[in-house]
Amino acid sequence: MEAQKIVEAMMAKDEFSKWLGIEVLSVKSGYAKIQMTVRNEMCNGFGIAHGGISFSLADSAFAFASNSRGRHAVSTEVSISHLAAINTGDILIAESKEINVGNRIAVYSITITNQKDELVAHFKGNVFRKSQEWE
Amino acid sequence: MEAQKIVEAMMAKDEFSKWLGIEVLSVKSGYAKIQMTVRNEMCNGFGIAHGGISFSLADSAFAFASNSRGRHAVSTEVSISHLAAINTGDILIAESKEINVGNRIAVYSITITNQKDELVAHFKGNVFRKSQEWE
Amino acid sequence: MEAQKIVEAMMAKDEFSKWLGIEVLSVKSGYAKIQMTVRNEMCNGFGIAHGGISFSLADSAFAFASNSRGRHAVSTEVSISHLAAINTGDILIAESKEINVGNRIAVYSITITNQKDELVAHFKGNVFRKSQEWE
Amino acid sequence: MEAQKIVEAMMAKDEFSKWLGIEVLSVKSGYAKIQMTVRNEMCNGFGIAHGGISFSLADSAFAFASNSRGRHAVSTEVSISHLAAINTGDILIAESKEINVGNRIAVYSITITNQKDELVAHFKGNVFRKSQEWE
Repeated sequence: MEAQKIVEAMMAKDEFSKWLGIEVLSVKSGYAKIQMTVRNEMCNGFGIAHGGISFSLADSAFAFASNSRGRHAVSTEVSISHLAAINTGDILIAESKEINVGNRIAVYSITITNQKDELVAHFKGNVFRKSQEWE
Repeated sequence: MEAQKIVEAMMAKDEFSKWLGIEVLSVKSGYAKIQMTVRNEMCNGFGIAHGGISFSLADSAFAFASNSRGRHAVSTEVSISHLAAINTGDILIAESKEINVGNRIAVYSITITNQKDELVAHFKGNVFRKSQEWE
Repeated sequence: MEAQKIVEAMMAKDEFSKWLGIEVLSVKSGYAKIQMTVRNEMCNGFGIAHGGISFSLADSAFAFASNSRGRHAVSTEVSISHLAAINTGDILIAESKEINVGNRIAVYSITITNQKDELVAHFKGNVFRKSQEWE
Repeated sequence: MEAQKIVEAMMAKDEFSKWLGIEVLSVKSGYAKIQMTVRNEMCNGFGIAHGGISFSLADSAFAFASNSRGRHAVSTEVSISHLAAINTGDILIAESKEINVGNRIAVYSITITNQKDELVAHFKGNVFRKSQEWE
């Protein structure tokens, strides 16, 4: 299955990405760019976006990019650097690129920027690539 | 302010933790144990919990534990190991403990177990400890 | 091959662990405890142990513990938290324990303590477990 | 003190970077590029470079880049992805770039490539920036 179709199939059943309001902007093999807008119900006790929100956005971009290669890819170990506060109304764009793709393990770098083009988070993720293909 | 009161104040305004259905089970200075149940709207295109869900639960436990020491604590760098799939209906418990507390940086280890007491995720987080106190 | 024998075979050819002066204190399947003493030639421009020294000690403990299970294990993604300065003459002990062992991926937690039993570093590592066995 | 002078001062006292055979290729504020050649005594029981070697090289590049900004910078939390095996005789180049520089925390991305320009490791590091300046 081609990259675009795989991500459409994933997104169609991805209830949490829908709740986040994620829109897919661009996909190609090993790459994804997606967007969402932060709502009040995504904030924490400090009145800023909960750390899980930027993580979840990056994680969706990561899943789309790594699966778009054609084989099922499962996240194993991931890290995120929180670089700036994110507020209600902010428009976030996550862009996922490949650092390296091996036979079994692949590593991705995901940046999150806001509507002012400021880098607000940086995410690095490892997937285990199964033999099973998207079909 | 004492640990219990700080977490109550945080939770009262934490809209995303409420959406997740988080219940605070136990809090003391530098420690938090919380629980939630996975709902269908938290799942991804594979029909299992989105990686952002276990992360968010752990991140709330981490925030509660690190702030309960009395000073405002802000997450900087965090990693998570996904160890087993999480399904709709699973009851997850996150327990956050201190690895080390320095003057400016503190490090926490958070485990997530399910209703069968299986370890499903392991989270490690760094906070920057501000001078500002909870009051 | 049994755990003890695997680590002996690894250590016999591990020139860098020898340079570090590593002594193996205890090994069992999935576990290793090793020790070294910090020398002046291991220090950096601040006059304290280079970050690579505590990392390398933990990495050896991690390799011994993960390979001692019987299958070849290769490090993929690792993180380290530096918690306290390490000085010339310090005696460091690294203890590696399993967080989780899956069929292909396993995760280990390694602590480093000094001669005062202070925690000076915390390391978390992922290995990919090959099919190939130690023999 | 300017970037070049700071790194010269650090390198002059950095006994472990000398043992590694590190040469500084290029430095500017927030940036460092350094090189080393892998020797047999840097290898592990698999006959390839010990994981601590690529880590140590990246860690030196990270220290040089983060301190070259003028304030003392101390590594706190770091991760490394091992992407390809490194052999005796390989010439490794580590290049450290800024992801983000805040007042107290800064984050760097370090790539390690070999003489064939293959990416063999990727390192991400956080420093705590002290008030103390290099002088």
